[in-house]
Amino acid sequence: MYSSEEKKTYMEAAFAEAEKARRQDEVPIGAVVVGPDGQIIGRGYNRRELDEDGTAHAEILAIKEACQKLDSWRLIDCNLFVTLEPCAMCAGAIINSRIKEVYFAAMDPKAGAAGSVVDLFSVEKFNHHPKVIRGLYKEQGAQLLKDFFREIRRKQKLAKKAQENCQKD
Amino acid sequence: MYSSEEKKTYMEAAFAEAEKARRQDEVPIGAVVVGPDGQIIGRGYNRRELDEDGTAHAEILAIKEACQKLDSWRLIDCNLFVTLEPCAMCAGAIINSRIKEVYFAAMDPKAGAAGSVVDLFSVEKFNHHPKVIRGLYKEQGAQLLKDFFREIRRKQKLAKKAQENCQKD
Repeated sequence: MYSSEEKKTYMEAAFAEAEKARRQDEVPIGAVVVGPDGQIIGRGYNRRELDEDGTAHAEILAIKEACQKLDSWRLIDCNLFVTLEPCAMCAGAIINSRIKEVYFAAMDPKAGAAGSVVDLFSVEKFNHHPKVIRGLYKEQGAQLLKDFFREIRRKQKLAKKAQENCQKD
Repeated sequence: MYSSEEKKTYMEAAFAEAEKARRQDEVPIGAVVVGPDGQIIGRGYNRRELDEDGTAHAEILAIKEACQKLDSWRLIDCNLFVTLEPCAMCAGAIINSRIKEVYFAAMDPKAGAAGSVVDLFSVEKFNHHPKVIRGLYKEQGAQLLKDFFREIRRKQKLAKKAQENCQKD
């Protein structure tokens, strides 16, 4: 179990990843994997549009990097911090790679697979059950997404206006 | 909807992928993605141990290749054939990438996320619901895994025997 200070440090690192996505007009979601010795061994941010790859979610990329770093598909005693509740794919990847603890910020009422829509971490029959810590910096996680989508709508509105003005000319 | 002949061709291509895994001592699971024009645009086989990557499942690799081929994360009108029921991670990836139809052979009673343990494809709240065709060549799919694990046990037994003989000398 981490101290409040450690949790803050790791979640801030996940938010720093999300910020990289935001700066490239990707839905801002970031994740980090913390290794057994407390070092961050995997980082990832949503790159779905950038890579044109439906599997390029923050958690998947962070897990892949951590596996590479440890040269093992089993991320024993590793923990994951992510700014949004994992989707089914990412929750499955967390189970498959034996992540010990999952800390996430905002809930995802549309696709969340850690309690919102389904709860894959509590399915008894699966062979691994990560401990889940919900709601760490949840307001910050939700606000980040809210601001992003507001900005998208603002840009769309401006583009529409510009198009209308063009047609008038 | 495919003809029986087409389904046979695509599932055989998935089994050919599984065979690549088996030859490299990986649990033999294979998958292909069929594009809108009927061409196979993504192939993958389980490479978890080879790549030391918990996300390197057959379906994920086939989906990634198909996304690259179409230069799109949306695999609209694409279908997936796989020799084993997808796990939660792969079922999530199938949903995320908007695969239209999923054909699979053997059921996976331990980790299957298309009916065996959970059924992610029928979760109403998710924003995409692939059509699922179960049990195509299911005996072949199950036999492949059965033979593989029997062979693993045989090798382990031989290794144990050799070790015991060594200690006797």
